[in-house]
Amino acid sequence: MYLPSHFHETDLTVLHALIRSHPLGTWVTSGDGALIVNHIPFLLDASGGEFGTLIGHVARPNPVWQQYSRDVPSVVIFQGAERYISPSWYPTKQETGKAVPTWNYAVVHAHGMPRLFDDRDRLLAHVTALTATHELAHEMPWRVSDAPADYVDALLKGIVGIELPIATLTGKWKVSQNRPEIDRVAIVDALQQQNDAGARAMATLVQAAMREKG
Amino acid sequence: MYLPSHFHETDLTVLHALIRSHPLGTWVTSGDGALIVNHIPFLLDASGGEFGTLIGHVARPNPVWQQYSRDVPSVVIFQGAERYISPSWYPTKQETGKAVPTWNYAVVHAHGMPRLFDDRDRLLAHVTALTATHELAHEMPWRVSDAPADYVDALLKGIVGIELPIATLTGKWKVSQNRPEIDRVAIVDALQQQNDAGARAMATLVQAAMREKG
Repeated sequence: MYLPSHFHETDLTVLHALIRSHPLGTWVTSGDGALIVNHIPFLLDASGGEFGTLIGHVARPNPVWQQYSRDVPSVVIFQGAERYISPSWYPTKQETGKAVPTWNYAVVHAHGMPRLFDDRDRLLAHVTALTATHELAHEMPWRVSDAPADYVDALLKGIVGIELPIATLTGKWKVSQNRPEIDRVAIVDALQQQNDAGARAMATLVQAAMREKG
Repeated sequence: MYLPSHFHETDLTVLHALIRSHPLGTWVTSGDGALIVNHIPFLLDASGGEFGTLIGHVARPNPVWQQYSRDVPSVVIFQGAERYISPSWYPTKQETGKAVPTWNYAVVHAHGMPRLFDDRDRLLAHVTALTATHELAHEMPWRVSDAPADYVDALLKGIVGIELPIATLTGKWKVSQNRPEIDRVAIVDALQQQNDAGARAMATLVQAAMREKG
């Protein structure tokens, strides 16, 4: 990924937070002379290795667990907030006219070599943890143990676990760090006025990057 | 991508609409024994070939335009709405308990072999069209011609155009088509209650899939 230094986010806590808040990863690998893409909710085990380990599962009929490259590391992409940024928001534009549109986004790329697991107990522990994570926000959290045990056992036979120890973890926070402060303040203001969760999330990222430099 | 037939979206109009509403594509290619990922806002030329042509640009210092595979087709991934779906929402769960969580999402994968262009007039036409598309929603649309001509010329020298005639276009709409109607109605209701643009967008997709089958 093209990564000018002012867009490079290296704080492991920040990168892990994006993975946790946007857990639907895009897993890309190559196999049989083509790129193979699958979308999988991953759980992050921050204690697994230097950069953490991603843990997920695929349906057993999904050929990816047989096809994925054992030579070229996979990449899992996590995409956070993203928004079109109009130069019409920039106060500096009034002075010089020197501005063009851009697109802001925050993304994390995790590269590593996947490993498979399919023993029943480990799969059960994985889906139990994955479920608990996503039911946290619910008033009446559903638990795997709410389903009949034989039903769960049959489902576990239908999936294959994937774990990806992260070898390289890269964050690109393209959030207007290359604009003067007066423009960044105006961008935050314009995004907040859009009154949309995605635009507000980007406003928060632009603000956070300003505080960092401040 | 693993694609059970009930999740397969084949309507070209629907696939193109997702690209247009979520134009920040994730371009993946392989080069030098690794996967290379870049995030680029694409413009769709629906008239370019059977499935359309994606047009974008990268910064000239971005090595991807030199590195990208000329053997293995690239893939550009467009991600639409996505949401965790709790089994606690399913009325059928009350009867049998047979339900587990899942993740709904709508994605489009465009595979094809990129081509480069960098003549000034074509780049200018491209950035002008790209800007016009994204300024449409703005009260006072900014236009490329609002910037000084020599400034724009200098910027055009700093980018390289990418066009990707789409050879294969695949849509996966994983939006609860495998649940009985009573559950789908409840999912729509639960998502709408979340009062969040992303959840509402997923509710709309679940509803649209129900109408299709009806």
